[in-house]
Formats: sequence, structure tokens, C-alpha cells
Amino acid sequence: MDVSLIQAMEKIAGANKIIITSHIRPDGDSLGSMLGLSHYLISLGKEIVLAIEDEIPRLFHFLPGIQSIIHAKEVPFEKKYDLLIVLDTNSDTSRIGETLASMQVPTLNIDHHPSNNKTADYYYIDSQTAATGEIILQLLLLANAEITCAIAVCLYTAIVTDCGFFRYANTTPNTLKRAALLVEHGAKPNEISENLEKITLDDLMALRDVLSTLELDVNGRIASITLTRETLAKNISSTDIFINYIRSIADVEIAIMYKITDNSIIRVSLRSHGADVNQVAQIFGGGGHQRAAGCSINGSIDEVKKLILTAATVQLEGKQQ
Amino acid sequence: MDVSLIQAMEKIAGANKIIITSHIRPDGDSLGSMLGLSHYLISLGKEIVLAIEDEIPRLFHFLPGIQSIIHAKEVPFEKKYDLLIVLDTNSDTSRIGETLASMQVPTLNIDHHPSNNKTADYYYIDSQTAATGEIILQLLLLANAEITCAIAVCLYTAIVTDCGFFRYANTTPNTLKRAALLVEHGAKPNEISENLEKITLDDLMALRDVLSTLELDVNGRIASITLTRETLAKNISSTDIFINYIRSIADVEIAIMYKITDNSIIRVSLRSHGADVNQVAQIFGGGGHQRAAGCSINGSIDEVKKLILTAATVQLEGKQQ
Repeated sequence: MDVSLIQAMEKIAGANKIIITSHIRPDGDSLGSMLGLSHYLISLGKEIVLAIEDEIPRLFHFLPGIQSIIHAKEVPFEKKYDLLIVLDTNSDTSRIGETLASMQVPTLNIDHHPSNNKTADYYYIDSQTAATGEIILQLLLLANAEITCAIAVCLYTAIVTDCGFFRYANTTPNTLKRAALLVEHGAKPNEISENLEKITLDDLMALRDVLSTLELDVNGRIASITLTRETLAKNISSTDIFINYIRSIADVEIAIMYKITDNSIIRVSLRSHGADVNQVAQIFGGGGHQRAAGCSINGSIDEVKKLILTAATVQLEGKQQ
Repeated sequence: MDVSLIQAMEKIAGANKIIITSHIRPDGDSLGSMLGLSHYLISLGKEIVLAIEDEIPRLFHFLPGIQSIIHAKEVPFEKKYDLLIVLDTNSDTSRIGETLASMQVPTLNIDHHPSNNKTADYYYIDSQTAATGEIILQLLLLANAEITCAIAVCLYTAIVTDCGFFRYANTTPNTLKRAALLVEHGAKPNEISENLEKITLDDLMALRDVLSTLELDVNGRIASITLTRETLAKNISSTDIFINYIRSIADVEIAIMYKITDNSIIRVSLRSHGADVNQVAQIFGGGGHQRAAGCSINGSIDEVKKLILTAATVQLEGKQQ
């Protein structure tokens, strides 16, 4: 059932024992939103359980309250809960894990993804916001909550994660104004960016190896890199930095990253500045968005490169007509 | 003479033929501020000459009006000018070049650097702003100027350049609010960041080479890289990306970049997360800020490394006491 932000607030206000969760493979928006909301609800005296069916990456250990997030399997289920709040994703097993998705508790879903499937008991979806953290801030302001420094740090982290430090197309005037308000309440832009943008020595050495695999095609308009099993076996924080680097090369319109996995499947990531790489991915049963998509193809690296490069070239040439 | 922002506006309003300049080695703040101001003054019917005693990096060619900036030596000096506006730097020969610094015209200096030497006829210095672009926006709002899309793009570029896309410690709530206003008036955060953060293939290949020179000392708290003559001979956009990368490594507190130049002088750049590298640079006759400083030392690379590493280690250990 579609609810307004005020109705969402009322659902929360009416509950005392609340579980808050978000998607597996947690990121800054999911964790920052969970924590930002929980700091306020705890201050109201509510009993809050924060749980995720996954590990918390070390990168986010600086977030105030992060140590209170437990694994979904550790939730004390003998207690009766009034409400399950699912943030920043669908309330499905595939997104929040089976443990919490199978709970018999009313579910409130708050999300900013246009792809949200709206299957929760109650849902508030605002796809005009860059991050779920923006919605949580609106919610807290609506409730006249005191925006503490801890809340400001969590929600600022949530916002900058999903708008790429205000560099993605989803950055609106409201995104920047909300960030300004959070800085007024104690979020330190430099400290948060230093925490989030730390790279490990392993990442850096992997980047060096990956740069050696760079190939350019179609007059430098398509750039590709290949992550070998050896590179992937290293302790890499995220392979996104590699493809983003390649995408930033002057004149490159489509960036492609091939990951050679163990079972003769090549995972392909595609990024563009406007060319519709979603259409390329869909040919091979994958998908995503216009500027960021992916697919997995069974085959040798040489075969897969040929297939993808052909499809990407057609996409580029089509774009020109 | 110290003037208020209103007095600065009055000086500009009272002039008809105006030259606007900024520092050599122009960056996004200098060029964006010059252009943002000029778009408004041209709309008032004033005769504006935009000049810099240096080349304009290709990176900034996307800025609306950039082609109207001429080299200082091309200024038609036969005309009489009413005012020279110097933005984002001192009005000295060393900063704006001799051609314009030696003009016999009243000078108005608008800057955000606390180090401004205040030698201009009239100066307005606000070191609370992250960028001169912020001051120009305030000036235009004070004048009830229409913030056109062209102005918004120029001033947004100015601001994001000097606050590192809102990641540096100088990012204030006002910085973010002003950016929000510029987005409302047509600046596109994603397009501007894509333009500013383009890297060339040469940069990327140089990065690969530079990463091979990485050395870690003092338990990984000091990281250093060396740019050889061969690397420096390549067409690199900026060496800042290299040292910034090194500075982002987890646990690194001081990042050092050595540039081996042709005349047995080693240029040293220092960056930190808090340790006072200005004090390290000062030992060798250099200087800068607490977190970013540099110096040049005559000697072999091995000698210089030893000197700098010793001084940096002392600085780190001192910090701990």
C-alpha cells in the first residue's frame, strides 16, 4: 500500500519494537540511512534492532553506531516486533535475505529506486531523490527531530555515496541543500570523503595490473580492461574504481570491464557517457540502466570480447545516425 | 584599500572599459570566476577584455565564453581602460604576469586566499569562501543580476575546482547552498564533473609507471612516489592526481612525490591528512599549507629522499607526542 511520508512517520511512531534492515552487499546509502533513522528512534526510547544478512565492509566502520548492526541470523526472534523497516531496496528475499524477508511482521519500505517492486505492506518510494538518505532526512525534519552530529554524519555519508560526491546526474538542488543542512549540523565533508575514498595498497597494485590490460577500439571510443583470476583473487575493495577510471579517459564513450571467473563465465560490466549500454547487456540476457549495465556470458574471453565489442560498436554507430 | 562587496560592485559599475585577469597557470576557479563575472558585465553593455598571461588548458575549453580570453600580450593597449579586475590571486607581476601588472590603471582585487598581500588599489578578500567563484556569485546576487545558464556553469566550475567537488575542509554550508542555486540555474553537476575529470591516455599510462615507484616507510604511514624525467616528458595533464592517489592509501599519513628535473634539482610535493607538512617544506626553503606544501632541493634523488624522509618522520613522531 502506497503511503505518504507523514503516514510512514505515523507507522513508525505507532511501533515500539522495530527491526531496520537494508540490502545485502550494504553500501553507504543503506548503512547511513539505517543508522541515521535509528539514532532518532532510539532517542525516542524505541527498541531498535539493526540487522543485515551480510558482512559490513570495513570502509564503513567510521559511521557512528555501526557496531550495533548485527547479522540477520543473530536477531533475537523470540521477541515480538511491531514493524520491519526496509530501506533503500525491495523487501524481497533476494535483496534483504531470507531470514528477515520471511518474518511475519508488517513491513514498511522506504526507497528511492524507481525499480522498487512495491510489494511491501506499506511503501514510500521517491525516485526524485538521489539517495534514501535524503528521504530519511525529510522524515526526520517532518518529525521535528533534532539533527545530531551522529545523524548528520550518517545521512551525509548516505547521500554522497549515491550521488558520487555530487557528481552524478541525480544530484539536484535539493540534494545539495540537504547536504548543506547536514554540514550545518556537524557532518565534516573532508573527514567523510577521506573515510569513504580510502584505497588499499592491494587496490592500487591491482589498478597497476589492470591498466596493463587496457585495449582501445573504434578510434579510442571504446576502452576495455580485463580482470584476470589472479587480480580478482586479490583483496580488492571494489572493481568499480577500475571501470570508472577507464570511463574517464578523454574520447572514451563506452567502457567495458571483463571479469574472468572460475567457471568459464565472463562477467561483463558496461559504462557509458550516454550510449545505451543497457541495450548491449540485454542482448546477452543482462540489463541495468542506460549508462551502467552488465551481463554474464558463457565462453572464452576472446569469444566474449568479440561478441561484446561487436554489439557495443553497433550501439555507438546507431547512436550517431 | 579595503573595500566592501558593495563598494567593489560600485567600482565595477562606475567603469566602462574593464580588463579582467587572474593568475598564470589558470585553473577552474580563476577561469570560471573571470567568465562568470564577464557574462554579467557584457550584458550591461560594458566593454570587457578577458586576458591571462598564459595558455588556457584544453580541459577548460567547455566553459561558455572561454574563446574570448586572450593572451595578455594581445590586449589592445591603445584603448584607455577604466579598471583592471584581478581575481583569485595577488595583483603582482609574479602572479598575473608583467604585461598587466605594469598597467597604469586602477586595480580591484577580489580573492579568497588568506595569503593575499593586499597591495591592489582596492581589494575585497574573503577567506571564508572556498572559491573566488563564491564571491563572484555573491556579487552578482547583490547586483540583482540574472544568473544565466552560462554564468551558472562558469561559477559552478569555479567552486567545485577549489573545494575538490565538496570534499575539502573548506566546503561550508554556504558552498553547498551556492552550488544548489547554480544547479537551479542550469549548471549540470554530472556534465561539469565529466568535463573536469577527464583523464588522458598519457595520464593513465603515466599513473601505471608511477605506481611502480611506490615506496612505503614508517609502517606504511609515509608513502612516496618518484616521477622520472621520462614520465615528466610525457604529456601529463597534472601530476596532482598521482600524489592524491597515494595520499588516499589506507594508513598513509604523509604522501611525498619527487620530481626529477633536468638541472639536478628535485622538486618535492608533500600532502597529509593533518600532519604539518608545511614545516617539513620550510626546512628546505619551501612552504605552503599544513596539509599541502612543497620545496625544491639541489641534490641526487637518493640524498633528497633521505633528507625529506627524515624530516617527515620527525614531523610524524612529533605529532604523536
